[in-house]
Amino acid sequence: MSELRRDPICGRWVIVDTDHSNKPEDFEYEPQSYKGGTCPFCYGNEAMTPPEIEAIRDHSTAPNTPGWQVRVVPNKFPALQIEGELDRRGIGIYDMSNGVGAHEVLIETPYHQKDISDLLDTEVENFLSMYCRRAIDLAKDKRLKYIMIFKNFGAAAGASLEHPHTQLIALPMIPKNALDEIRMAHNYFEFRERCIFCDIIRQEQQEKERIILENEHFLSFCPFVSRFPFEIWIMPKKHNERFCRISQENEIPSLASILKETIARLKIVFPNLSYNFIIHTSPVNGDGGVEGYHWHIELMPKLTRVAGFEWGSGFYAVSTPPELAAKYLREKQ
Amino acid sequence: MSELRRDPICGRWVIVDTDHSNKPEDFEYEPQSYKGGTCPFCYGNEAMTPPEIEAIRDHSTAPNTPGWQVRVVPNKFPALQIEGELDRRGIGIYDMSNGVGAHEVLIETPYHQKDISDLLDTEVENFLSMYCRRAIDLAKDKRLKYIMIFKNFGAAAGASLEHPHTQLIALPMIPKNALDEIRMAHNYFEFRERCIFCDIIRQEQQEKERIILENEHFLSFCPFVSRFPFEIWIMPKKHNERFCRISQENEIPSLASILKETIARLKIVFPNLSYNFIIHTSPVNGDGGVEGYHWHIELMPKLTRVAGFEWGSGFYAVSTPPELAAKYLREKQ
Repeated sequence: MSELRRDPICGRWVIVDTDHSNKPEDFEYEPQSYKGGTCPFCYGNEAMTPPEIEAIRDHSTAPNTPGWQVRVVPNKFPALQIEGELDRRGIGIYDMSNGVGAHEVLIETPYHQKDISDLLDTEVENFLSMYCRRAIDLAKDKRLKYIMIFKNFGAAAGASLEHPHTQLIALPMIPKNALDEIRMAHNYFEFRERCIFCDIIRQEQQEKERIILENEHFLSFCPFVSRFPFEIWIMPKKHNERFCRISQENEIPSLASILKETIARLKIVFPNLSYNFIIHTSPVNGDGGVEGYHWHIELMPKLTRVAGFEWGSGFYAVSTPPELAAKYLREKQ
Repeated sequence: MSELRRDPICGRWVIVDTDHSNKPEDFEYEPQSYKGGTCPFCYGNEAMTPPEIEAIRDHSTAPNTPGWQVRVVPNKFPALQIEGELDRRGIGIYDMSNGVGAHEVLIETPYHQKDISDLLDTEVENFLSMYCRRAIDLAKDKRLKYIMIFKNFGAAAGASLEHPHTQLIALPMIPKNALDEIRMAHNYFEFRERCIFCDIIRQEQQEKERIILENEHFLSFCPFVSRFPFEIWIMPKKHNERFCRISQENEIPSLASILKETIARLKIVFPNLSYNFIIHTSPVNGDGGVEGYHWHIELMPKLTRVAGFEWGSGFYAVSTPPELAAKYLREKQ
């Protein structure tokens, strides 16, 4: 019989198929592939993007020329734009605002065909540090309330460009899912005077069966209430409400190492897999209310299509229990 | 500049691209196609499914033989099973239950290659009536709290079988999205003493620009806060909390007609499109709390892939404003 599991963070129920669990070979997924063509994110094509905002590059090189290791540019087709006053208003029962915000693209590496698992540790550290720098810089604009950092890798995961990149969207309001998570985590904190994420880490460390990897500062595991087969969370062991407060000296190298190794294992089990990850963190420029929140990364491999059931209900059915997924990933090296 | 719009029902913000709006020809979608092979839902293959629960069939024919117009069978690989006691329990900070519930498949027509828009009005009425009959029957089991009725059409929309069918899942708890909608609608009702959905209908009828079709009992429109391009809601004009309380005599023919015609127009604009729809309705066997809720259908054409941004945030970006989408659909006949 299948199991129903309830996410303690946002109250979502998930059906876990423990009877006819899917093994890795049971998934038919669309493999990520490189089609070629001129890439605006490759060396020599810097003029194809809007001028760079920030970069890590050789000292002898000029902005918007080759010689960079990480490069941040405005999105050429931004979902939101930084200019203009925020103008919230109602139209009858509806609410709207003009599209004030920011939309940046962070090119992680000059190498078109290298996924995170193919990079050197220091290269991963570089782009993770740049995530922080951009988040801190964007948060200086007091109109902005939430900085979302996410990566779509592969066409099946919604990436419109092949070259590895991450997007940063700064929003003038807190998105619903973040608000739900923060509220529930805060309720738990009020009730128990403990962080729910710290409690999850403790329970996962005790039970061990869902852990993929652990290093000095981070835990990589398949969450008890996975929405997708082989879903992975990477969580800092030290309580920290906000991603950009991460220690550059100690935690960034530890995160780079666990992120790279987790993706490497995932891609041994599923070659050329597409995936998304998102950094879940506290809002910025707010009036508090993030007590008991704990930043983390949620990584979703693109193994299945999401159908009507999930969309309609927020009620997911997952065909590989996280205990089994973690076992496959733990044993691959 | 783009617009930010907030869903008054569940508080979700959506970015609507009013600057570089996508026209129908701008979408590259995976067309729905028929691959052939033996189909367990076709005439003559009745033995390939579990024995039928209920059917509309010629009087002279026996169960599990040809001669049916609509046929309901248990899902061969059910997400939930009806046997056993509901056993909710905690494991540390996590919550779980055994998978008690029901999972049925409603085969809408004997014709393998006919979508709803290809059926006769009476054929659509027949399967819609059967939706009600099954929902009423399932709700007799007091352990079940929510009956979800949804259709996945085409592989891109998550359908694992080509033959047109709808799924019914009866759950022992109310899924999160339904709960969110019901709570917000109830808050609005407490504040205004009016149903928010009735107010939406009134505003849409006044503004007209998002309406696709209207008949005696139903309105078909692109919602102001569409999450997906060409998203469509079909809503009964008469306030009614629960789908299965629909009038068989007056409303079912009206719903069959508007559903068929809406899908027909969608498929003129996007030939061989895959789509999902879900019936949003009130919970069953509850202790009330649905005052101010109003059942409706949400239809999501599969034109785009959902990427990390949407998953992480519940914050959608839609490239065709609903006003434009409705215009395209209104003008196609």
